[in-house]
Amino acid sequence: MHFGSDNTSGAAPEIIEALAKAAGGYSASYGSDEITKRVEARLAEIFECELSAFLVATGTAANSLALSTYVPPHRAVLCHEESHIHVDECGAPEFFTHGAKLVPVGGEAGRITRAALEEALTFWSSGGVHRQQPALLSLTQQSEAGTLYSLDELRALSTLAHEKDMAVHMDGARFANALAALGCTPAEMSWKAGVDVLCFGATKNGALGVEAVIFFDSEKARDFARLRKRGGQLFSKGRFLAAQMEAYLEGDLWLRLARQANEMAALLAAGFQEKGIALAYPAEGNEVFAFLSKEQQRALFKAGVQFAPWDIAGENRPLARFVASFSTEKADVEAVLRLL
Amino acid sequence: MHFGSDNTSGAAPEIIEALAKAAGGYSASYGSDEITKRVEARLAEIFECELSAFLVATGTAANSLALSTYVPPHRAVLCHEESHIHVDECGAPEFFTHGAKLVPVGGEAGRITRAALEEALTFWSSGGVHRQQPALLSLTQQSEAGTLYSLDELRALSTLAHEKDMAVHMDGARFANALAALGCTPAEMSWKAGVDVLCFGATKNGALGVEAVIFFDSEKARDFARLRKRGGQLFSKGRFLAAQMEAYLEGDLWLRLARQANEMAALLAAGFQEKGIALAYPAEGNEVFAFLSKEQQRALFKAGVQFAPWDIAGENRPLARFVASFSTEKADVEAVLRLL
Amino acid sequence: MHFGSDNTSGAAPEIIEALAKAAGGYSASYGSDEITKRVEARLAEIFECELSAFLVATGTAANSLALSTYVPPHRAVLCHEESHIHVDECGAPEFFTHGAKLVPVGGEAGRITRAALEEALTFWSSGGVHRQQPALLSLTQQSEAGTLYSLDELRALSTLAHEKDMAVHMDGARFANALAALGCTPAEMSWKAGVDVLCFGATKNGALGVEAVIFFDSEKARDFARLRKRGGQLFSKGRFLAAQMEAYLEGDLWLRLARQANEMAALLAAGFQEKGIALAYPAEGNEVFAFLSKEQQRALFKAGVQFAPWDIAGENRPLARFVASFSTEKADVEAVLRLL
Amino acid sequence: MHFGSDNTSGAAPEIIEALAKAAGGYSASYGSDEITKRVEARLAEIFECELSAFLVATGTAANSLALSTYVPPHRAVLCHEESHIHVDECGAPEFFTHGAKLVPVGGEAGRITRAALEEALTFWSSGGVHRQQPALLSLTQQSEAGTLYSLDELRALSTLAHEKDMAVHMDGARFANALAALGCTPAEMSWKAGVDVLCFGATKNGALGVEAVIFFDSEKARDFARLRKRGGQLFSKGRFLAAQMEAYLEGDLWLRLARQANEMAALLAAGFQEKGIALAYPAEGNEVFAFLSKEQQRALFKAGVQFAPWDIAGENRPLARFVASFSTEKADVEAVLRLL
Repeated sequence: MHFGSDNTSGAAPEIIEALAKAAGGYSASYGSDEITKRVEARLAEIFECELSAFLVATGTAANSLALSTYVPPHRAVLCHEESHIHVDECGAPEFFTHGAKLVPVGGEAGRITRAALEEALTFWSSGGVHRQQPALLSLTQQSEAGTLYSLDELRALSTLAHEKDMAVHMDGARFANALAALGCTPAEMSWKAGVDVLCFGATKNGALGVEAVIFFDSEKARDFARLRKRGGQLFSKGRFLAAQMEAYLEGDLWLRLARQANEMAALLAAGFQEKGIALAYPAEGNEVFAFLSKEQQRALFKAGVQFAPWDIAGENRPLARFVASFSTEKADVEAVLRLL
Repeated sequence: MHFGSDNTSGAAPEIIEALAKAAGGYSASYGSDEITKRVEARLAEIFECELSAFLVATGTAANSLALSTYVPPHRAVLCHEESHIHVDECGAPEFFTHGAKLVPVGGEAGRITRAALEEALTFWSSGGVHRQQPALLSLTQQSEAGTLYSLDELRALSTLAHEKDMAVHMDGARFANALAALGCTPAEMSWKAGVDVLCFGATKNGALGVEAVIFFDSEKARDFARLRKRGGQLFSKGRFLAAQMEAYLEGDLWLRLARQANEMAALLAAGFQEKGIALAYPAEGNEVFAFLSKEQQRALFKAGVQFAPWDIAGENRPLARFVASFSTEKADVEAVLRLL
Repeated sequence: MHFGSDNTSGAAPEIIEALAKAAGGYSASYGSDEITKRVEARLAEIFECELSAFLVATGTAANSLALSTYVPPHRAVLCHEESHIHVDECGAPEFFTHGAKLVPVGGEAGRITRAALEEALTFWSSGGVHRQQPALLSLTQQSEAGTLYSLDELRALSTLAHEKDMAVHMDGARFANALAALGCTPAEMSWKAGVDVLCFGATKNGALGVEAVIFFDSEKARDFARLRKRGGQLFSKGRFLAAQMEAYLEGDLWLRLARQANEMAALLAAGFQEKGIALAYPAEGNEVFAFLSKEQQRALFKAGVQFAPWDIAGENRPLARFVASFSTEKADVEAVLRLL
Repeated sequence: MHFGSDNTSGAAPEIIEALAKAAGGYSASYGSDEITKRVEARLAEIFECELSAFLVATGTAANSLALSTYVPPHRAVLCHEESHIHVDECGAPEFFTHGAKLVPVGGEAGRITRAALEEALTFWSSGGVHRQQPALLSLTQQSEAGTLYSLDELRALSTLAHEKDMAVHMDGARFANALAALGCTPAEMSWKAGVDVLCFGATKNGALGVEAVIFFDSEKARDFARLRKRGGQLFSKGRFLAAQMEAYLEGDLWLRLARQANEMAALLAAGFQEKGIALAYPAEGNEVFAFLSKEQQRALFKAGVQFAPWDIAGENRPLARFVASFSTEKADVEAVLRLL
């Protein structure tokens, strides 16, 4: 019963098979291979537009490299105060941008609000040469609180950012889960909603380690191949990143895997509520934040259930995070619920 | 007939199998898994000493992160003028060290000579606060010219470096090929020869993408876990790096793969020489640099042989580089020779 | 009537004279001159301890270089949310530290509170390799709100920082004003209160452009000469920084200048209060924050008074900042008060 | 008898007077003052074109900031192998450019030759994403060897650089000496010769510490004000940089000072040659490199003459560098010659 993180899950069999198939023979190195080309074409189809896509191995690198393309060192990124790039990357965004500032912006349930964004913009856009002016708005979809921005919310925040000459970045480490939940198209949740650069995650949802950095304006991607190289993310055997991504996209595997995770989270959330356990946030994707008492948490741990005790600023009740993954099964959920 | 680079080869079946085996179930994330622990222990056995080992995905990252541990931004790295870190990493070492200088040092056949090292040391160690003083000597074993430092040469250069309070780094992207060729122990070619930090490559020799940064003084590795994280090289599903490395080391697979590559290179080199084709350097590992005429090169290309036309400063004869890999077969070599 | 900033004042005649005197003849370059040596000795006397002092030309550089000595790129600085280093340096601290994070910490009237510091420490000290752990606490004395930490407050915050293995930095751009106000010794307000590195400002208080970075633990200053050089702050004609500082310290000129500024600020503050104009903060040094109505502000501007309209988060009343400098005269203050 | 460096000289009286005059009263801070505006206008007149000029305090900062405007971290600077930016700035150019590579280019007597430039271009322009491609050519006029590029040579090198889409930077720490020697106009030796950005030095030639970074294409200077701020070079009391520069330019003081230095160097060089002492390079500006025997050097030192023993790669004869400054007098030169 592993609900500690979707990172503790393994890899989908289809993806392993694709690696095995790609392992033989010879192919051009450093991303010039045929599989990489096919993946780029496939992403353009899925997103219904021309785009430039670059594969890297980790979400840390994907987000940090994406930011570095739009944000010079003397400017700032506006991001949610709980966002991964701000609090969980040990300074990787600052490293790759050579010192841009990450400005924490508030908002309930992991989502930046318009009011909080405006307040941050007012302050950080002033100050002339003395202040790092915002160059980019970063939105996490699905958010760190397991919640989702609606398409309207995405569009409203993006519009405000664009009006201020900022770019919009989406941290899509759980893009698949969000998309499966919203039931919209990839285009609608990205460039049609104002996203300029998307980090399209696969690792958490069944790959071994691959993410695509997708630029909807190819002009902006001009230097990216070099940034990726000097960032240590250009694989000599690039086919092994591409093969993962190809299998992930093939036959909508990615959406099937995400739906499984979401359904298991929904089942768990419903079970908690039936037992009178309140949720901190609506469980809109594959994460459930539940107010489990210390006793309940101890009991689960003792029974071998893995999950993460959690803290929210200003909240005194004990809280726990459960993450479902592509490999979570109904029996896992039922076992947890039975223990409560 | 693929001799363009060992990077164009695929992955050894044993390594793919290990990934498949690791794909199921759940494990701790971010390198806290059991396979990673076993790999660290196994490396300590192989190198016959206590050590700290960290897995990353690319050679670019391995070398750059290793350098950043020893070289502050205001100091310099002494490296061969043809070394990969100097001319083929698009500035990754400068990026990860925040601007340390890579000082090119001369020497025939890809190897730094004592005289050249002394000359560089004399100049760069002077100049007080105005000059970036050397903090590290980087040696590439097997060198970019396919040649090897003898153990005596390694020890002599390391000793000189240590006398000057510099650390010694080994770029071991082809460590296995060098070791197989020298027939010594891993310890003899690393810490016993004065190496402080080794980048132990697996990618070129049959893995999909994994390298170990090995510190023989664990104290120096204290911050490395954080540097790796902010460098975008901490895999959330770390088991998939570790599983590759475990299979690579298992039953000396790595040495068998390297021997195959070396033998094929030796066969090719011997064949060239039999046909009166001179070599630019002795083919001591898995690379052969041969003075093939323009006509010979054209004929091979036409017949579908892949190799790299090469340039050496001050050499007017046309030159070509052939790299054998773990998957090169005797038939490949024979086919090339038949064509000449 | 110039109350816009102490930066709009000029230079004290004593300091200009010292420059004129230093202008003739020849002296060793790059800070090896005799005046520099005398300044270092004089600072040691004034601070009653052994120390290492380095002169630079701007406060931006002083603070940023000081931070870079203690804070590796993968760690964080805790500083007040309104601190100059966080909001008014266009990212210089991030630049010189190669990307360390500046974590804004709350507290009324420009001063970090113990509770806010503890909350920040709790969050940022957790998270393992994923989070930039605090390495330094930065305190601004006199604060950006014109207020002062008492010696007790300084000691309490420093003690907490040291318990967490953090260093303590003091941004002393207005150190002289603070010292004159508290009436304690330089030692008491710095190393005896737990400060590890002090940026001792002179520019705002009568110099043309010079600040001293003072390390109370010389061991930590080991690389500073090189950091200063590569930071573009090593003056070839170092005597011209030193001559300013020597004159500034000579015969307690610095304290006389600061007292003048403080007294004028106190006079202005008292005048405001007599007229029923409330202050946002107690005017403890050379700055006065007064709730002047829009009409009052307009009237003053019209009459040629320079000051800065100000904003405080969560405060709706119009506010104005007045800064007195060493050259402010009683007639200036009286003229302002007369206009209201 | 101070010939150690032009850095050991003091400041011209006219410049000190200007500082004294600027010291009183109040003025806008951070470079918004009237003197700064006048200096910018005056530089435009002197260079006979529209330009953007920014004052900073040191040559290290001027050159490094100038480079950072044109050279992204993943590209390279081509510069002479003995250039100050390469060997005497402790990595400041690498710091301000965030890790761009400085590629040393050969050439006799401190001057890059066309052949050496072409060779460097051929190598560093190849290599695709794996190599840091050149973005800028840096020329030092007067060179580190005290020699000068002719206008034809400047134009030829600049043309080659521009053909390769590189910018051209001139390190003009001794621009005045070079100009006085060539007898051309400032425009001819800068933008008319293809220079895109000029570091116009004043410090070595009579100022206390001020240099102008001059962009002949203002569009490229767009972000420079921010780069200067975060680089720690925006003076709060900017008038004190500007007052130095204004006095330096007033009535061609700068050219008079430079001529004095050049004439003294010429006198010294002629005296050496009369005594049969060979020069390593023609003494075209204010520096003389003479093959003084060890005995001669010892005798001079003993007599209190300051100069710098020097080394040239591949030259075994003892060598000494003498630098004349604006304050060098005929008696100084004669005293040295008398001692030989």
